[in-house]
Amino acid sequence: MTKPTSLEEAQHLDLNDPFAPFRASFAIAPGLIYLDGNSLGPLQHGVRERLAETVSEQWGVGLIRSWNTYDWIDLSTSVAARIAPLIGAPQGTVAVADSTSVNLFKLLAAALRLRPERKVILSEKGNFPTDLYVATKLAEFLGQGHELRTVEASGIADAIDADTAVVLLTEVNYRTGSRLDMAQISAIARKAGALTLWDLAHSAGAFPVDVEAAGVDFAVGCGYKYLNGGPGAPSFAYVAAQHLAGLFQPIGGWQSHVAPFSFSEDYEPAPSIEVLRTGTPPVLSLAGLDAALAIFEGIDMAALRRKADQLFDIFVGNVEAGCPQLELLTPRDPGKRGTQASFAFDNAYAAVQAMIARGVIGDFRSPDIMRFGLTPLYLSHQDVWQAARILCEVMSSRAWDNPAYMTKAKVV
Amino acid sequence: MTKPTSLEEAQHLDLNDPFAPFRASFAIAPGLIYLDGNSLGPLQHGVRERLAETVSEQWGVGLIRSWNTYDWIDLSTSVAARIAPLIGAPQGTVAVADSTSVNLFKLLAAALRLRPERKVILSEKGNFPTDLYVATKLAEFLGQGHELRTVEASGIADAIDADTAVVLLTEVNYRTGSRLDMAQISAIARKAGALTLWDLAHSAGAFPVDVEAAGVDFAVGCGYKYLNGGPGAPSFAYVAAQHLAGLFQPIGGWQSHVAPFSFSEDYEPAPSIEVLRTGTPPVLSLAGLDAALAIFEGIDMAALRRKADQLFDIFVGNVEAGCPQLELLTPRDPGKRGTQASFAFDNAYAAVQAMIARGVIGDFRSPDIMRFGLTPLYLSHQDVWQAARILCEVMSSRAWDNPAYMTKAKVV
Repeated sequence: MTKPTSLEEAQHLDLNDPFAPFRASFAIAPGLIYLDGNSLGPLQHGVRERLAETVSEQWGVGLIRSWNTYDWIDLSTSVAARIAPLIGAPQGTVAVADSTSVNLFKLLAAALRLRPERKVILSEKGNFPTDLYVATKLAEFLGQGHELRTVEASGIADAIDADTAVVLLTEVNYRTGSRLDMAQISAIARKAGALTLWDLAHSAGAFPVDVEAAGVDFAVGCGYKYLNGGPGAPSFAYVAAQHLAGLFQPIGGWQSHVAPFSFSEDYEPAPSIEVLRTGTPPVLSLAGLDAALAIFEGIDMAALRRKADQLFDIFVGNVEAGCPQLELLTPRDPGKRGTQASFAFDNAYAAVQAMIARGVIGDFRSPDIMRFGLTPLYLSHQDVWQAARILCEVMSSRAWDNPAYMTKAKVV
Repeated sequence: MTKPTSLEEAQHLDLNDPFAPFRASFAIAPGLIYLDGNSLGPLQHGVRERLAETVSEQWGVGLIRSWNTYDWIDLSTSVAARIAPLIGAPQGTVAVADSTSVNLFKLLAAALRLRPERKVILSEKGNFPTDLYVATKLAEFLGQGHELRTVEASGIADAIDADTAVVLLTEVNYRTGSRLDMAQISAIARKAGALTLWDLAHSAGAFPVDVEAAGVDFAVGCGYKYLNGGPGAPSFAYVAAQHLAGLFQPIGGWQSHVAPFSFSEDYEPAPSIEVLRTGTPPVLSLAGLDAALAIFEGIDMAALRRKADQLFDIFVGNVEAGCPQLELLTPRDPGKRGTQASFAFDNAYAAVQAMIARGVIGDFRSPDIMRFGLTPLYLSHQDVWQAARILCEVMSSRAWDNPAYMTKAKVV
């Protein structure tokens, strides 16, 4: 049990918070407490301006000339260069293209090709569906006897064996916020001759990540969660340096060619991470993501994580003190979790709706989970203190027990 | 040889042009003559406004709630519904997702799976590289003995045989503007038991297309050329109704699931065209494309094509009369071409740069092609008359013979 925090303590922490000035960069409406940046990061004023300029000036005025004038063709490389330090990747090992699903497909295909004799893709039960679906379909597509095997988190290490081609895991579980030990599992995999493909959707931008130190082979991640790139922003993909030479990328789009503008009929893959590009880059989305990442320049990710942990302690401590009917699903040990807090509650969907009606946005995950993202760039200690208070009010008043909050929307 | 047109004739045609009012919807700078809409369609004021609203209101204020409030989750279906009539596709047979390259990959994979005993992917020499590259890599990836065979346009019909799994063609050649007979080739393929996959990048939005009447099995197309969706806008994919049931889509992203928000661990593909979705939709790009397509509502595509032909006659007639050193590569027969005009000239790159410096934007394609898109929504008859005059001035004055125009930019 974490000790509850008083409003005065939260206020005091805000006064000494080096991240407090960053809040002004975000366009979140005054009074709104946004605890869903782990699903869709908020807009920054600089991103709005960059998008407006990209649309009006670069596209509108520059037209086709902007491919050169504004270097659209290498915008994805600039964006990748901003993401690399956030995940501990050397420059030249990160690409930005397509969606996380498509990047998972590309990298899983590449990895399986490096272990032709092994047929098992090992993953965690309860991993994010797209990871499991992509593996399932890819196995079916190849028709070479590959099989997706899922085990509980506690059983992953033991399940890695000589049949394992790829260990496909998400570092932080999207439902519970539990965090796997990326370095330890990657080491076990490497010892067993298996490759690792990590989904960093709930890691990159949330806390320090070091794929190189952790010995990760491949990784993907999301541009629109903690990186705040905007709805459907492009995804990133990491390939460890030792796999770059001759990397097999199955989708031979023209932008994966060594010289796309030679319009050569013969396919010659780019001898670099750019081989992960496929089609024409989504310039508008890339521009938004590029501008969104500027805020991370020079940020001390360890300090950001410390603030996230403080937000966790305030939020969880006050929720547990004020509404004992909620069960914390997220590990208390900071080393074993990401930066979200999840609670189980039978009427979780309605409770989340009741909170949204009261100005606190979290989200629901099936079947009974309330999920709250704790994102230090735009949340104050008082914000999460207030959010806990409102959650406990919703609980104690049974505000969730209202038919208006019970009908699920199309997107939950 | 087409007869040259006088400025007075061009002016007269403009006075009677039913499409003239559409020019005001576009943000093209006054005085600029934009003949590159076949590479990147221009910005419309309504698109700028829609994007600004999507960024500031939907993302900025609505945040995660906008998935429901603004139905982001089905935005791709709305966009697809606007594209379907432009290509003669019944509602429910078009999806919008990813890039053209990725959609080519998905549909080629689906098609090959329907013809497991056949190993040849037949295409045209000089087809757009991404089409050829995607086929090459997919064949290598599957490792089932597939082979890409390319023949000259004139030899396609004869090359279709009992080994042909898929005929993969672009209707309008990106270099020359030559148009293949989609209905005839599709009929020959069908008779031979082969499937067709057509790339409509230079067709959709340019002239009437009827995939259903032409008996096309699969098609893809581009959102940012004639559809004006913005740089890197998402692509569309068509699947003939008879192939929809059980369509095999190799990239099992979560948005291809029958119920993505059930977060079920078991993959069950959507029993509809939505199976072609992969990851989280690129909301900003989709919003831009959606707004861009509004201008096509109620447009008579046959009339649009007639104006494009008139623009062709004025442009080509005057160029041929004024600069005989240029060789027209585009067929004169309107039935055998799209809506661009291409000329061969040894110093094509420099000549295009010289024209751009004089306010006429066309583009260059390797090795010696000047390419001009004739897009009736925002080009007047006088525009193309002036463009022809400027091209002939560049030719007669040898303005291209200037070192400043000779160094190729990164993107050509």
